[in-house]
Amino acid sequence: MSKLTTKEEYADLLSRYDAFLFDCDGVLWSGDDLIPGAKEVLSKLRSSGKQVVFVTNNASKSRRSYKGKFDKMGIEASESEIISSSYAAAVYLKDVLKMPADRKVYVLGMDGIEEELNAVGIQYCGGTDPDDNRFLPALDFSSLQSEEAIDPSVGAVLCGFDMHMSYIKLAKAFKHITRPGAEGPVEAGKKGGGCHFILTNDDSTFPAKGGPWPGAGSLSAPLIFASKRKPTIVGKPHQPMLDTIESIYNLDKPRTLFIGDRLDTDIAFANNGGIDSLLVLTGISTVEDCDKQGIHPKYVLDSIGNLNV
Amino acid sequence: MSKLTTKEEYADLLSRYDAFLFDCDGVLWSGDDLIPGAKEVLSKLRSSGKQVVFVTNNASKSRRSYKGKFDKMGIEASESEIISSSYAAAVYLKDVLKMPADRKVYVLGMDGIEEELNAVGIQYCGGTDPDDNRFLPALDFSSLQSEEAIDPSVGAVLCGFDMHMSYIKLAKAFKHITRPGAEGPVEAGKKGGGCHFILTNDDSTFPAKGGPWPGAGSLSAPLIFASKRKPTIVGKPHQPMLDTIESIYNLDKPRTLFIGDRLDTDIAFANNGGIDSLLVLTGISTVEDCDKQGIHPKYVLDSIGNLNV
Repeated sequence: MSKLTTKEEYADLLSRYDAFLFDCDGVLWSGDDLIPGAKEVLSKLRSSGKQVVFVTNNASKSRRSYKGKFDKMGIEASESEIISSSYAAAVYLKDVLKMPADRKVYVLGMDGIEEELNAVGIQYCGGTDPDDNRFLPALDFSSLQSEEAIDPSVGAVLCGFDMHMSYIKLAKAFKHITRPGAEGPVEAGKKGGGCHFILTNDDSTFPAKGGPWPGAGSLSAPLIFASKRKPTIVGKPHQPMLDTIESIYNLDKPRTLFIGDRLDTDIAFANNGGIDSLLVLTGISTVEDCDKQGIHPKYVLDSIGNLNV
Repeated sequence: MSKLTTKEEYADLLSRYDAFLFDCDGVLWSGDDLIPGAKEVLSKLRSSGKQVVFVTNNASKSRRSYKGKFDKMGIEASESEIISSSYAAAVYLKDVLKMPADRKVYVLGMDGIEEELNAVGIQYCGGTDPDDNRFLPALDFSSLQSEEAIDPSVGAVLCGFDMHMSYIKLAKAFKHITRPGAEGPVEAGKKGGGCHFILTNDDSTFPAKGGPWPGAGSLSAPLIFASKRKPTIVGKPHQPMLDTIESIYNLDKPRTLFIGDRLDTDIAFANNGGIDSLLVLTGISTVEDCDKQGIHPKYVLDSIGNLNV
């Protein structure tokens, strides 16, 4: 772990890597405030021909709507440079799990996830469907008894952040992931049997005005507790997110750097995935936290803005 | 562990105990079917002057409405003989935690819990309040910002089974149990600070038509995951339920027997609490499960009906 403090060290850092992966909140901005110099550093990277990628666990939004945040902050970014856990989950279902075209994904999440599933051409149900966004009459399970209610063509349950979570959605998702053979393979042309269980991310809390508030990891906790199944978790610090990024951008790992403000998500993510990491001190974690948490970045930098020299 | 099979053993069992605590489903009935002989055995115990108590983790109902099940099955029972986890939680808040009269309980649960809190004279909010039983606009946390929304007079969060669980309720409960000083004492005449965190029970699933369905323990999982707090759990196999029963009925522990069909809830509950236990084989657990789970009842009996001799 080395703290970068001189112009020479900054220049050396930029020359060592071709791709720069950024966590956003706490690195480029803090809430609604831009980190001074962040914009200029990104421009500098672009003009030096570096690949920049923005990596967020936020599963409430699609890449398209998350780009709105960049626009608001006045930071140049294209949709294709943004990797959200909702998008990574959709790509994971499509490319890694090879979800058959005739099987659906049951969504416990909002329209950002649905938009990303649409983008990769995967069928889904649940989510924002008004039928699943209502309160059942107390102790009345009658509407959950039919094959129509618990659709046997569902081949995966995908859980993200959902402010419209409901007992109906939990109950249906629970039935899918516990049906006979659910832990087996998901086959095309076959109803029932295999059903994947995927979380976009397992962040316990969600940052928003007045927060923290319960996050995607908390909202999926009932399903894990009730089903005793171990889900595949896509987002940082888990590896499916990095696998997705690697496959999309054709990264050369030794020449890729991840920059983040949290040891337990960002830095652990890079370290576990075998890419170099840089901790900036404009967000959650401090240098003292490194020993406490036993997670050490390759580099430490006061602020991303320091690279603007 | 001894299997009771003869008339002499049955008679000996009845003479050894003054109080008989019964789990209900799997012991007295199975779903909507009465266990043959159960009714007659209860009558026999009553006519011999024994105390009978019905102990259920079901937190969806008050004792009053749970008595309806006994009426439907044609089994004699009075409200005062029924201990549900909703009632035990109310008594625990009142008598053990001594909730000050000016502090409220925030309820994640249904009207059965509210009825029991009313019965012991504890103020509450949340629960069936229409304001907390609705969907927030997606990503809009504005209605959760005020002191009115997160009432500082709340001194406990009580979580039970709630088919109307919502993000609002989770978010409010989360704020109560994580506010500064929440793990400290709950004082009368003081707002904020201490806030107890109580679960009626931690059953992962709930038995109902077409079930199992996610249960009270699953519905409280988001709060535990998000807050990192360890709640007090009232229901079987945890001890607050037994403390409540003991205090209400003035039990003589060596002359008290618990009868149940599940090792991990019923038999563990009795064993942990230092009272004798009897496993009946008309429900969930088998004799083989005893070694597998490492939980051993004092007695095993094929069916409660066998005692009808």
